[in-house]
Amino acid sequence: MSTGTERDTTRPGSGPLSSVDLGRLRERRSVKWTEYPPDVLPVFVAEMDTPLAEPITAALTAAIGRGDTGYAAAGRLPEAFAGFAGRRYDWHPDPTDIRLVPDVMTGIVEVLRLLTEPGDRVVVNTPAYPPFFYWLDRLGLELVNSPLALTDQGHRLDLDRLERDFASGARVYLLCSPQNPTGLVFDRDELEAVADLADRYGVRVVVDEIHAPLTYPGVRHVPFASLDRPAAARSITLVSASKAWNLAGLKAAMAVAGPAARADVAAIHPEISEAAGLFGVIASEAALTEGEPWLAELLVQLDANRRLLGELLAQHLPEIRYRLPRATYLAWLDCRDLGFGDDPAATFLERGRVALQPGPRFGPAGHGFARFNFATSAEHVTEAVHRMARAR
Amino acid sequence: MSTGTERDTTRPGSGPLSSVDLGRLRERRSVKWTEYPPDVLPVFVAEMDTPLAEPITAALTAAIGRGDTGYAAAGRLPEAFAGFAGRRYDWHPDPTDIRLVPDVMTGIVEVLRLLTEPGDRVVVNTPAYPPFFYWLDRLGLELVNSPLALTDQGHRLDLDRLERDFASGARVYLLCSPQNPTGLVFDRDELEAVADLADRYGVRVVVDEIHAPLTYPGVRHVPFASLDRPAAARSITLVSASKAWNLAGLKAAMAVAGPAARADVAAIHPEISEAAGLFGVIASEAALTEGEPWLAELLVQLDANRRLLGELLAQHLPEIRYRLPRATYLAWLDCRDLGFGDDPAATFLERGRVALQPGPRFGPAGHGFARFNFATSAEHVTEAVHRMARAR
Ligand SMILES: Cc1ncc(COP(=O)(O)O)c(C=O)c1O
Ligand SMILES: Cc1ncc(COP(=O)(O)O)c(C=O)c1O
Repeated sequence: MSTGTERDTTRPGSGPLSSVDLGRLRERRSVKWTEYPPDVLPVFVAEMDTPLAEPITAALTAAIGRGDTGYAAAGRLPEAFAGFAGRRYDWHPDPTDIRLVPDVMTGIVEVLRLLTEPGDRVVVNTPAYPPFFYWLDRLGLELVNSPLALTDQGHRLDLDRLERDFASGARVYLLCSPQNPTGLVFDRDELEAVADLADRYGVRVVVDEIHAPLTYPGVRHVPFASLDRPAAARSITLVSASKAWNLAGLKAAMAVAGPAARADVAAIHPEISEAAGLFGVIASEAALTEGEPWLAELLVQLDANRRLLGELLAQHLPEIRYRLPRATYLAWLDCRDLGFGDDPAATFLERGRVALQPGPRFGPAGHGFARFNFATSAEHVTEAVHRMARAR
Repeated sequence: MSTGTERDTTRPGSGPLSSVDLGRLRERRSVKWTEYPPDVLPVFVAEMDTPLAEPITAALTAAIGRGDTGYAAAGRLPEAFAGFAGRRYDWHPDPTDIRLVPDVMTGIVEVLRLLTEPGDRVVVNTPAYPPFFYWLDRLGLELVNSPLALTDQGHRLDLDRLERDFASGARVYLLCSPQNPTGLVFDRDELEAVADLADRYGVRVVVDEIHAPLTYPGVRHVPFASLDRPAAARSITLVSASKAWNLAGLKAAMAVAGPAARADVAAIHPEISEAAGLFGVIASEAALTEGEPWLAELLVQLDANRRLLGELLAQHLPEIRYRLPRATYLAWLDCRDLGFGDDPAATFLERGRVALQPGPRFGPAGHGFARFNFATSAEHVTEAVHRMARAR
């Protein structure tokens, strides 16, 4: 528990991930805490075990007091995001080019509907956030599987492969930056090379930056739209406070138009914006305007957890290859040397009673992998690794 | 303000619509209170000016305390709805046939996607809830405009017309029951006649019962799915606590399968259910299990308001034809004798600074009409009519 007054943000013992009580967590009604029976420790879906940041609690409590539960309007959320982006990334989108959407996935779907025709090719780096596969298929789009390169230094963008995939007649590149599940943060040079390829081949870039606020200290997230390139001006970026402040269930995200994509984002139908959640808007605005101190504390603890996970794996499951993510609270574990087959998460669940996210859902590149969510206490990270080790 | 202890539910002075303070309402962030400048009195969108029911406040406050803001799971919401439907309508759906969706409109869209092919014909009674037009068009479906009959006794279902429209090769009948904007409640005989037609012509019935809990004392809502007919067994009904307890911005609704439509509702993709709002689930469950006393008080006040509106219109705007709705807090005003043209709401807004919902948005049958939302205090109903009268 936090001591309240003089909070030491360098000690993992004092931040948002310290007061994590399993009994309390099991009272939660969210997917993470209801999907499995109580003897399973869940580290799968991208929810955090933190309490809410204080400014969010205050804003939501006030909304309840007002009975403010009608249809969502964007209000000053676009300004709140623009302010945050300016302070954090030196990116200065115009608030009038920002549109409210219910969540990032819906935003991607709406943007793809506007930029593509059924049958068009959309390039996605794999392993990829699993719902991309479902939604592209549902939109009648062809997903062009563009694997990240996997080297001894971990994953990286494969620009040669990307060029070939762009050259194959792609309409859109759906860039996830920072990348889920690998935790890659792309540097400016890489992103400029991507932009140059997009300009050369006439590919529109749709960027999912949902994890950007969760970039670790010392690493710099460069918003694709902030690049000085035509492809950046024509890009559309999906952003949200939902991962960094754990607000996925309240339903608010934004589509941000580059200066040459204004008309596209303006074409998102008002029905889509009104389908957002009003509590998501209210909570996100509080997060983006007053939530940075909390985020700083959170990142200190996540940083400690990503290292702790590495030490625990080295000790108890040395066959697993794991590289520190540069962003996100997600660890992409290469379990191929464990001999658990295509879906090691199934074995961890069955024998260890710990639920990781199955790698094969992230595409063919996910076979033999599993994703571990370490946005919990150090105790739970430790317990989860012990359970995984028991599966061996 | 309520006196708290001995609440007299027969006096409009003591229920949820009594403590409605304009200053507080203007602090709300919802569409109703942010769409127009402060000199406009809004009576357009279907939000209520009530505070939240106490059990909902308690449930949401507890959720904030738990930090329970991750992805939505249905939890016991299906059971809560089944219990409510049993007590209120003697309708007994099986909770396992109930699927969580983010809102009623999304539920309708998902169900139509499953039951139709692009180009199929979908029969809709007009005037109709405006987003039906947008979404059917977006799904590539042909909306068959089946006007309600307008007689000296008000609107009613036109079964002859409906039969002709079914016979024209319709795939689905999208039945809104109770009906928005007319406030019609269909009786058992009418609904059985509809079911027989649907069976005769092989039309699937998708039923929007979002307004059902708002049926007035003395009137009985008959769930279409509760009829003893094959068409009822094959029907899919969309339900929600969002209108009766004012939870539209929290994002939860349900699709309820008739016993012969199980496979259809089961085919709604889990991605759709997970896109619901967790606070919507939590608030709706509280509403459906503990919110009936509050609803009873609300209906007493809405009943008084629907009559008050009639008296005020007779006095100040006798040209407007208005019949008491049998359900909903919506009044469908026939303003054709006012001489304000197709869109009388535009004149009320411009000259009277009062915002009604424009009739033409409800389809061709809405020309010369406007919709008035009386889910506010008696004072505001009075003020709104005075403003409307000033427009003359
Ligand atoms: C890369 C990525 N995109 C999108 C999403 C989904 O976000 P939302 O819940 O806002 O649709 C996630 C969720 O974890 C994600 O990791
Ligand atoms: C008849 C009808 N259907 C659907 C809706 C939309 O409901 P939701 O906000 O759950 O999509 C409304 C909203 O007023 C309505 O009146």
